[in-house]
Amino acid sequence: MTSTGERVHAAALELFAERGFHGTGIRQLAEHAGLSSATLYHYMGTKEDLLVTLMRTSLERLVRAGEEIAGSTDDAPTRLADLVGMHVTSHAQRPLETRVVDDEVHALSPSRRQEVVALRDRYEALWQQVIDDGVGSGHFAVTSASIARRALLEMCSGVARWYDPAGRMGLGELAEEYSALALRLLGVVGDPATTPARRVAPDTPGPV
Amino acid sequence: MTSTGERVHAAALELFAERGFHGTGIRQLAEHAGLSSATLYHYMGTKEDLLVTLMRTSLERLVRAGEEIAGSTDDAPTRLADLVGMHVTSHAQRPLETRVVDDEVHALSPSRRQEVVALRDRYEALWQQVIDDGVGSGHFAVTSASIARRALLEMCSGVARWYDPAGRMGLGELAEEYSALALRLLGVVGDPATTPARRVAPDTPGPV
Repeated sequence: MTSTGERVHAAALELFAERGFHGTGIRQLAEHAGLSSATLYHYMGTKEDLLVTLMRTSLERLVRAGEEIAGSTDDAPTRLADLVGMHVTSHAQRPLETRVVDDEVHALSPSRRQEVVALRDRYEALWQQVIDDGVGSGHFAVTSASIARRALLEMCSGVARWYDPAGRMGLGELAEEYSALALRLLGVVGDPATTPARRVAPDTPGPV
Repeated sequence: MTSTGERVHAAALELFAERGFHGTGIRQLAEHAGLSSATLYHYMGTKEDLLVTLMRTSLERLVRAGEEIAGSTDDAPTRLADLVGMHVTSHAQRPLETRVVDDEVHALSPSRRQEVVALRDRYEALWQQVIDDGVGSGHFAVTSASIARRALLEMCSGVARWYDPAGRMGLGELAEEYSALALRLLGVVGDPATTPARRVAPDTPGPV
């Protein structure tokens, strides 16, 4: 991407996060990026095009990282811990991006929303798969795998709201702590690498 | 509150949630509530006054409900399960309110923000206390009680983003499921029905 494109992206991220998509004018955006409205349009199209580009970039990064983790091991607890660590790190590092991607989907027109939601669904399917696999292998035990998935994703995305990069806790420590909490939520007791889930789902034959 | 006041509140909640605080004009707000801008100002003051009132109403309701639960029992797992159930139910029922209260704090001027953040802190202190108590009584085991508190609050508030009142899952079931997940995250192992973490409704003498 050109440096002008990068500047526009950074300006849009700041303003959309601070003022919301509807609260940000195209002129304000151009001014913040140091461009004329016409030049901005030439580079980025409409304000909605810009929002979709930001969302697509962010979600595609998550999907790529998630798919890499999904292909790295069959072991469900390891995969889950890696997904949690990646997601938490990514969201803690990009609070503005998280705010825009998570909070402004409703601002999109139906056809653009469809594209963004499809990407998000693809990412969330990776989480669903690892939870299903872990239940199947007897490592996890949950009443509802889809509720557990939503609970975990909201919990992990939430770091973008409070994590302070200047604070005492480093990103590595944060990721480790969240991975441990996530595994416990899924019923893993003790060392995730060796211990099967304590609570076994009714339809899962597993070591008790 | 007069019915005009209620109408203005409902209009503000819808527009702030849909378009953001900065994206909502005072005229648009008046129109949506079926009033003139002058009448709106007479009833509600500035747009920021209105936002603060919405936030204060919402947070005071949570604080009241939380304090009632805090005073109902010394048993930390029961108290935690009740807090989770109350929070999840409240947020699932009020998705617009959640969006405005959680996402628009940054839109407030410093002095107004202080008031709102103080209320939020008071509510979160109730959660911190029950986690600390549960660690003290040996029911909970966490590396960091403050991280666990933040993780739980984000997880529970997140239901406002996805819960569908028209869907298959009832609010009671949702609350119960989240309480079970929260207790596990805090290190309570085994079947919540038979461990000390068993959830007993405040007015139900349990067979413990």
